[in-house]
Formats: sequence, structure tokens, C-alpha cells
Amino acid sequence: MKIRFGVDYYPEHWPRSRWSTDADMMREMGLDVVRMAEFSWSLLEPVEGSYSFEWLDDAIDVLSGSGLKIILGTPSAAPPAWIITKTPEIQPIDPDGRMRYFGGRHHCCQSNAVYREHIKNFVFAFAEHFGNNKNVIGWQLDNELGNSHNELCYCKSCEESFRIWLINRYENIGELNNAWGTAFWSQTYQDFSQIQAPKLTAAGKNPSHQLDWKRFCSDLIIDFHKLQADILRKSAPEKFITHNLMGFSEKVNYFDLSKDLDFVSHDQYPGGHFLPKELVSNPEYNAAQLDLMRGLKKKNFWIMEQQAGITGWDILGRAPKPGQLGMWAMQAVAHGADTVVFFRWRTCTFGTEQYWHGILPHCGEPARYYDELKECIQKARLLMDEIRGSLPKASVGIVFSYDQAYAMEIQPHQWWGCISIA
Amino acid sequence: MKIRFGVDYYPEHWPRSRWSTDADMMREMGLDVVRMAEFSWSLLEPVEGSYSFEWLDDAIDVLSGSGLKIILGTPSAAPPAWIITKTPEIQPIDPDGRMRYFGGRHHCCQSNAVYREHIKNFVFAFAEHFGNNKNVIGWQLDNELGNSHNELCYCKSCEESFRIWLINRYENIGELNNAWGTAFWSQTYQDFSQIQAPKLTAAGKNPSHQLDWKRFCSDLIIDFHKLQADILRKSAPEKFITHNLMGFSEKVNYFDLSKDLDFVSHDQYPGGHFLPKELVSNPEYNAAQLDLMRGLKKKNFWIMEQQAGITGWDILGRAPKPGQLGMWAMQAVAHGADTVVFFRWRTCTFGTEQYWHGILPHCGEPARYYDELKECIQKARLLMDEIRGSLPKASVGIVFSYDQAYAMEIQPHQWWGCISIA
Amino acid sequence: MKIRFGVDYYPEHWPRSRWSTDADMMREMGLDVVRMAEFSWSLLEPVEGSYSFEWLDDAIDVLSGSGLKIILGTPSAAPPAWIITKTPEIQPIDPDGRMRYFGGRHHCCQSNAVYREHIKNFVFAFAEHFGNNKNVIGWQLDNELGNSHNELCYCKSCEESFRIWLINRYENIGELNNAWGTAFWSQTYQDFSQIQAPKLTAAGKNPSHQLDWKRFCSDLIIDFHKLQADILRKSAPEKFITHNLMGFSEKVNYFDLSKDLDFVSHDQYPGGHFLPKELVSNPEYNAAQLDLMRGLKKKNFWIMEQQAGITGWDILGRAPKPGQLGMWAMQAVAHGADTVVFFRWRTCTFGTEQYWHGILPHCGEPARYYDELKECIQKARLLMDEIRGSLPKASVGIVFSYDQAYAMEIQPHQWWGCISIA
Repeated sequence: MKIRFGVDYYPEHWPRSRWSTDADMMREMGLDVVRMAEFSWSLLEPVEGSYSFEWLDDAIDVLSGSGLKIILGTPSAAPPAWIITKTPEIQPIDPDGRMRYFGGRHHCCQSNAVYREHIKNFVFAFAEHFGNNKNVIGWQLDNELGNSHNELCYCKSCEESFRIWLINRYENIGELNNAWGTAFWSQTYQDFSQIQAPKLTAAGKNPSHQLDWKRFCSDLIIDFHKLQADILRKSAPEKFITHNLMGFSEKVNYFDLSKDLDFVSHDQYPGGHFLPKELVSNPEYNAAQLDLMRGLKKKNFWIMEQQAGITGWDILGRAPKPGQLGMWAMQAVAHGADTVVFFRWRTCTFGTEQYWHGILPHCGEPARYYDELKECIQKARLLMDEIRGSLPKASVGIVFSYDQAYAMEIQPHQWWGCISIA
Repeated sequence: MKIRFGVDYYPEHWPRSRWSTDADMMREMGLDVVRMAEFSWSLLEPVEGSYSFEWLDDAIDVLSGSGLKIILGTPSAAPPAWIITKTPEIQPIDPDGRMRYFGGRHHCCQSNAVYREHIKNFVFAFAEHFGNNKNVIGWQLDNELGNSHNELCYCKSCEESFRIWLINRYENIGELNNAWGTAFWSQTYQDFSQIQAPKLTAAGKNPSHQLDWKRFCSDLIIDFHKLQADILRKSAPEKFITHNLMGFSEKVNYFDLSKDLDFVSHDQYPGGHFLPKELVSNPEYNAAQLDLMRGLKKKNFWIMEQQAGITGWDILGRAPKPGQLGMWAMQAVAHGADTVVFFRWRTCTFGTEQYWHGILPHCGEPARYYDELKECIQKARLLMDEIRGSLPKASVGIVFSYDQAYAMEIQPHQWWGCISIA
Repeated sequence: MKIRFGVDYYPEHWPRSRWSTDADMMREMGLDVVRMAEFSWSLLEPVEGSYSFEWLDDAIDVLSGSGLKIILGTPSAAPPAWIITKTPEIQPIDPDGRMRYFGGRHHCCQSNAVYREHIKNFVFAFAEHFGNNKNVIGWQLDNELGNSHNELCYCKSCEESFRIWLINRYENIGELNNAWGTAFWSQTYQDFSQIQAPKLTAAGKNPSHQLDWKRFCSDLIIDFHKLQADILRKSAPEKFITHNLMGFSEKVNYFDLSKDLDFVSHDQYPGGHFLPKELVSNPEYNAAQLDLMRGLKKKNFWIMEQQAGITGWDILGRAPKPGQLGMWAMQAVAHGADTVVFFRWRTCTFGTEQYWHGILPHCGEPARYYDELKECIQKARLLMDEIRGSLPKASVGIVFSYDQAYAMEIQPHQWWGCISIA
């Protein structure tokens, strides 16, 4: 059993006539798997209830014709415009009370019942259709859950879900008042119906209120994931389910989430433009995240997105140094990854991530990154055909607790000396 | 007549079984007075019109049984949840137009007629009940008036109050147009009804509009105080009325406010975590504030809250050095304070101020701060039994004008070299 | 033909009895032209449809009696309070969704049909009345178009105008989807009616959406200008039309705007308090802006506002050094200006720009700035009587593109090394 490599691919960004060229080049490079579709809802369901899966069938055919296996993402991180037009209230509300509109991604409230109904219908049809495709080996549900929101949506629907969560946790309001210490500053609640999200106040917030909100948000995301996982497991029980986590990101309690996964995946951008300077290409920081990923299920994991070039939205990071892309991939393998999927095949000529580089540059001609990663894959195979499935033996363990992380985020004690976990 | 010492105490934060232990330890330490109740509305009126004063009666009995005298605060700085549920419109609106919700403190508009009605009813019942208690020697109305709002509430009710204030000041709109220089940028008003709070503009504001708003806000707070003071004076004329001011805070014109007080009190946290670095433990800055406090009524004053440990909300300040707490208390006495009340008895295990330390640590066992302050009180008594009631003789005077302070805040002229008064 | 000098004057800020003194002093100083009225709407139309032009007639008479020629500004940058009272919806909405209220300037949405109707009526009456006045030689429309808004208004009316602009540009939604690359992140639009301004999102924006919004905003401003220009050209064809541009400000594509102008004007404040430190009194930066101004119509231009003292709103810039005001004026002439109008005659004693100094200080007595500029004008006339109408011959050209500037603003690539053009 060998280490596998793959790539994230967006056939919808390119003309059909290009697909076979891409497939050949992927094969030539030594890739085994391709992840697709996690941002394609508007093309897969262009009109409500009318599914357009043929183009994706064709793309799968072209790729599998070159021997590549497929992982499909469900596209719930970016609902199509027609859903927003029909039910604008699914657009999330931020902690300042402002709506966050369509035009980016994650323009959706995860507690909203109407939105969940749309997802159920879509995922059911998606599972029915692609569940029978032998070349599809597994699913990734949504994309980087918990990403894109500094805090989860603060809408009426989320507040109502929070109250239900609190009732389940405390049963009666007296228990909640005791646990939250509402005797301080006259905050005693008479009834669960009075409780809101920890919205803007004139001065100060109750840290226990904030802590329970963080826990609720994590649980809501896990419930949102389960909604889809239940459908997919039933429709296609032989395919795996994974999710692309984000290391030390703390929006979701990954211990809880990973219970629902066959294995965890991780997205790593060690040279990302979004990192604080001291964490760019920081080997210890990267290693610590990889070890957390391995620890979640105490087993091997995938890298579902591995940096394959310069990262960038409106600004750009530094160009990876020669050999650096491969080094990051190998570091992941050394820490327990047995599949490494590079993000992304080809740099897109439009959209927010126009400057987030793939293996191929904008022009589509192979260049340094392609050559480097091809060589990396060849060398890795020689060295590591027997490694897959093995796990590093850690001589020390580090306790990581999301509850503690949330508490430290709410009350960091010191501005200096505080370890950032985002 | 001797210098007195005291402590701010929250019996509602601790089990009843602990109260007598606390009272004994206070007496042992040498304390004379205790301030209570200023954040206890939800426990004193748990249901509208249904007062629950017995627990506070009992707390007063326990403390006075150890020889301590009581100051009671009115709890209008934190209305209970049931008021908010019934009339959410009393939650204040910030200058950006956003509501500031229940969940902290000061979640109330001071001009709102409905809220004032609630206060009147409560304060009347409170005064009737505790006015006859001989161990209650005085009242503190509300808490740190003007605190917690960068600017006062911008709601419709406040805007209407502002217009009435302007009509009283200018009588006709032509006078206002002249005074505000509305000929500039075509801002001439035809009628008082057109005038709003100095809300967000596309570009620039009229500095005279801003200045009158600042003056109005101060007058509104004073009016809000008077509402309660009138009831308390009538019900219990022999008890004193004071308020805990905050040095150079400028939201309220303290010269105006102190006319309504028997004496002024001051809250001092010379090592506060919220202070800019250059003002932490700055003796001149502290002295200047104390002198302003003395100057307000040209007589002795109280310290109603004196730092008794590390201060902190989500972050913490530095631990006071050995002897520093006592030194600050003595500096206040040297500048004219004749009573020093320490904030607070015991560090609370919940709430926004979980890390704002009291004399006792969270565990309730006496430690360094207790020992230091006990010693300080003993020494102070030896030295200063005759000092009480005397006043320092200043050899120079410094003019302080709130109007000037407001004008300099609105038009600071320079970012550098500007003296901050907040 | 000689170089001309002038001043911006606000007779409405001062008593009538002062006007002739001012006129005499202007003449004595050597001034030729005076710009007036661009912020006087509330005094020119104090009640809807009831025009009060007499005071401005009188001011023109006084000034022209001293030989001065007049440029009149239309006052659309600051609609009177009665318009706002009647139709509060013309107040602009910012990118955060917040209304920007009356109380500063630019409190108006430029796409709003009701506001445009008010402007049409006013400008028609204004043109009819002053069009026959021989002492009025030209018009300035509005003031510094594009100023005062970080981005243009985001209201429903502007969004609707944007959709119409997009329909004109793309004709069908498929073209727009292709041009914007909406295949990325599932952003495909089914219909133009779904498109909004690039408002707040949860994460990321489409850069092509943002770019078209910038272009639309520029076109909207030009259309707003044309609305007035058409009326004025028809009513008074012999008078010139100009506009006071702002160098490298990029809200309006000045190449497009200047097509509508007989000549362009420029406002220059080389020592402005609002400039980043490295651009204060930076001769190259100033020269580059002047060359852009000359390049717009490849002909001579005016300086309509030239710094005449310290600038300031709530903070103040540095005092110009001796000779610096004249040097800046001469730099403009050397780059192609043939008229230099100083802002402003006398420092106002009220309003947002109370500290934006004019030639005369607040007290109205001539001082250093008056003396310096008087001497500058005398010297300039000796040297430059023959220069007017000539143009510098540039030995190199620099391409400047608003489309490129917008693209670089949306995706600056690097935080460091990025050339700011605002």
C-alpha cells in the first residue's frame, strides 16, 4: 500500500476541451486522486429541483479514464443565488447585527431550517446520482466548516437554536443562573426565552454566556455536518466520509466532529499570506497542527489541501522556495498523513482567489511547481511505499482542550504572552 | 473624629452561611462601613412590583451585628431582565445606530420615560423599606454615572430630550442657527424638530452641535440622578446622598452633579489595567484627580472604591507591589479623603469582573492584600485620628472647565501633545 | 493676457457691512476673480420653491464694483434641511448599511430621483437668475465630486442604477457571468435583478464585481454632473463650466468628467493636515498631480482652491513656512495653471472648517498670509504676463488609467510597496 497524491480540481473553471489535457498531465505527474465539486452548487442545481449532474459525470469520466479516483465535496458552503433570492433571511447576521450578503462564500446560516431543507434535497439527489459511480471513492462534506465566520451567525434562528441547546444543557433556568453567575450585575434570567446570543452590550459581557455560545456554535456545526453525513452514509455506505479541517482553527471542536468521520483531512498552507509573520513557514507550528490532526482519531489522515504555490486573495504571500512545497508534503507524511492532495490544479483567472496559485500557473503550461511536485512524488514513492498506514510514536503528549481554548480566548488575561490559536 | 475605612460587599455572590465569617473578618481588619446593593435589582425585585428585600435586611443585620455601618446603592445601572423583556426599547442605541443589548451593565437609556417609571417605583419602595434602618447611614445613587457609554444613548427618546433641551437654551431656531454657525455648509435649520443627535455623517460634523450634545448629555445624567435623589431625600431626610465619581472622566459635569450631593465620593484604581501605560501608578495623575474631587464641593470627600488588588476584565493589570495599596489610600487621605472604602471584599468566581480582585482572593482565605490593608488601617488610625475633617491648603489653583474639555475633545487641534482627560 | 488670481469667498459667513471692506482688500491685493455660493443652498432656497437670490446679487454687486469677476458654484453638495425632512431617504447609505445623516456635507445620494428633481428645479432657477449677470463669468458644478464618500452610496436607488448600468454593459446575464467569473464559489446569477452593490460578505468578494461597481460609481457621478451642466449650458451658453478636481483622487474618472468641462480646475493643499506624512509639501507628488490635471484636456487649467494658510478640521496641519504659499501657486503656474484661486478669503469662526485658515485670520485683519500672497501676485505679474496660455512641453509621458487604479486598489497584491493613489 503506497502513499497517494492528488489534486483539487475545478473543471467548471475551464473549457471542456481542456479537461483531457489536464487529466493526462495529472497522470503524468503521478497523481492518484482528485477532489471536485465543493463549490459548484449553482452549476449542479441551476434552477430549484432541476439537477444538472451531467457535466460532472463527464469530468469524472475524463479523469477516471486516466486512472484517477474521485472525492466529491458537497457544495453547502456556497448556496446558489436563487436560494438567496427566494429566502434572503438565510444570509448570516454578524455580531454587530449586520447582514453578510451573497457575493463571497459562506453566505448562509447553518441553523436555518429552510436552508437545511435545500441541502437535504440536494445532497439526497447528489448521493443517489454519484453514489453508484465506482470512480467516486468518498465524500467531503461542506468545506472547512467553521471557516469564514469570526463568530457564527447571530440571527433569530441561531438564537432560538441556542436557547434549545441551553434547555438541553441546564434543564431549568435556576441551573443556568448558577452556572453563569448571573447574580453579578443583576443578570438573573427568569426564563430561557430571555436569553440572546452574546450580542453587543453597552459594557462588558458575561464570560460564561460567551463560553456556552462558543460550545453551542461548535455543536451546531457538528449537527449541520451530521445532517448531510446521515444521508450520504445511507445512500452509499461503502464510500468514506471525511472533512477538511484547519489545524488549530477553533470554531469546531474537532474531537467531536471527527467522531462522524472515517478519517480526518487537513488543509495546510504553511507559507500562507494570511499567517502572522512569525508563523510563516514555521516548522514547529506546522508539526503541532499535524500532530493534533493525527491525534483526533489516533490514526492516519489525509492532507486534502496542501499549498502548491503562492497563496493570495487581494494580497499575495511569498513564493515558495525551491523544494519547499515538497518538504511541506513530506513533513505531513512524516506526521501521519498517507494521502496528500494539492490545492489546486491550475491558478484561476477570476474570482476572489485569482492570486491563490495552483500547481499550474494561470496560463496552464507546466512550470516550476509542477516539476518540483512531480519529482517529489517520484522520490516519495521510492522511499515510502511501506510507510503508509504506519503512525509516528510520540514520546510525549500535549493536552489540547477546546473548552480551555475558548475560555482563554474570552479571558486571555494578558495581551502579551497569550498563545494565539487561530 | 477619625478617618474611616470600609469595603464594597456583594452578599448575593456568596452563600448566607459565609456572611458572618466575612463580617467578623471585616471587623477584625478594622473596617467601619460597607457599601452594598448597587447591582442587585434582579434579586431585590425578581418580579415586577414584588420586592424581595429580606435577604438584604439579613445581610445588613449580620454586618451591623459586627458594628459595621451600611451605605446602600440604588441599582439603576443594571435593570433586571424582565424590564428588558417587557420594554426592549430601553436598551441604548450607540452612535453607529446599533442597539446595545442586555448581558453586561448600563443596558438602559437614561431619558426613557418607561425606564424612569420603573426606577421611581423601585426607589420609592427601597427608600420606604431601608429608610427606617438605623444601620443604613446613606445612599449612593446608581453607580459611576456616565461610565460605560462612550457617548450617551442616541435613541429617539434621547433625541427628543435633546430638542427640548435646545428649545430651553435657545428659545428660537434663529438663535440656534447663529450659535451653531449653520450658515457653513448649508446647515440652517427651519425648526427644532429637524435636529438630531450628532449621528454618523458622510463627512464632517458641526462642532457646536457636538458641543451642545455633550452639554445635554451631562444635564440628562444630572436629571436622571435628581429623579432618585428627590425620592430618597423626602423618604429619609437624615441619611446622606453621595455618588461615586471617576476623577477626570468627563461624561458628567461633576461641578453640576455635586450640587445635589452631601459630599462627593471618588473611585480610584491607580494601577488599573485599563489605564494607558504612562498613567499606571502615576502619582501626579492620581493627585490631580484627588484635588479635582476635593475642589468640587471644597470639602472632604470619600473614596467609595479604592483598588484592593489586581484589576481585570478579560485581561489583568499588574499585581500591586507590597505596600502600594496602602500608599494609594494614604495619598487619598492626604488630599482630603476622610473615608476610604476598598473595592471589593472578595474576588468573585464569576461574571465580567471575575479577575477584578478584592481584598480576599477567590478562595476566601486572607492573604497579602488583607494583611497589608489591615496594617495600613492600624497605622493610619494612629497617625490620623485628628486629621479627619481638615483640608489641604493648596498654594496654587488650576482651572478646570468641562466646556473647555468638551471643546478640546471635539477639536483637539493636534494628535500629539493633546492632554487626554478620559 | 495675464495670469489671474482669485479667492473663494463666503459672504454668508459675515455681516453685509463687512462685504465692501473685503472687496476693497481683495482689489488691493491684486485679485481678479471670486468663487462663491457652492455651499449656500439653504440660504438661496430657504423654503421649497421660494428662492432668495437677492443677497447673492448684492454680494456680486459689491465685489464687481471693485472690478472682480464672479464664478458661481451650484450648491448640490449640501442640500438644505427641509429636503432631508421631506425625503430622508436621500441620505446616503454606507458600505456597512448605515445611513449617513444630515449634519456635515454630502448628505445626499447622487442617484436618487427625488433629489435630482430638487436639483433640476434649483439649478434652472439659479441659471435663469444669474445667467444674465455679466459679472458672473462661469459656473462650478457641485464641489469636489466624489469627495466625502469612501465609496459611493449603497442605497436601493444606487443598487437599481447599478443594475441598469450592468444591463447596458453586458446585455445578457450570461455575458456578465463570464466576465465576472461567477463559476468561482457558485456565484452564477440567473438574472440581473439578483445583483447588489458589493456589500458586506461573510468572506471574500468577487473582484470583477467590485471593479464594475467602481466604474459604475464614476459614471454615476458624471451623469450627476451632466444633469446640471445641460441646464446651465442651455440657459447661459456664453459662460464657462468647470469643476474643482482633486488630483489623484480616484472616485471619478477625470478623463471622462473633463469632456463635459470647458477647462478643468484643481484644488491643491500641498501642506494639508490630511496628507500622510511623506506627502506633506512633497514637490514631486504635487507636480505629478498638476501634470495629470494638465493632461486631462491637454490645455491650461485653473487652481480653484489653493491652500492659503493652515488647514484643519478637528486637528490642524503645520503653518506654511514664509514664502511657501506663493511657491505652491507658482509651481501650479509652471505646470500649466493660468488662474490661481486661493481658499479662502477669511478663516471662519464656526463650522467644521473653523480651523481651515484663509488669507485673513479669524479676526479679519491682514497678516502674514495676506502680505505674502499680495507680494507673490505682484511678482508673478511682472514675470508672467506673457506666460498665460502657454503649456509646458513634457519630455516624457506617464500613462495613468483609472481602470488600472481601481484594479490595484481592489487587489493591491502587497501591503508594502503598494503606491497609494488616494
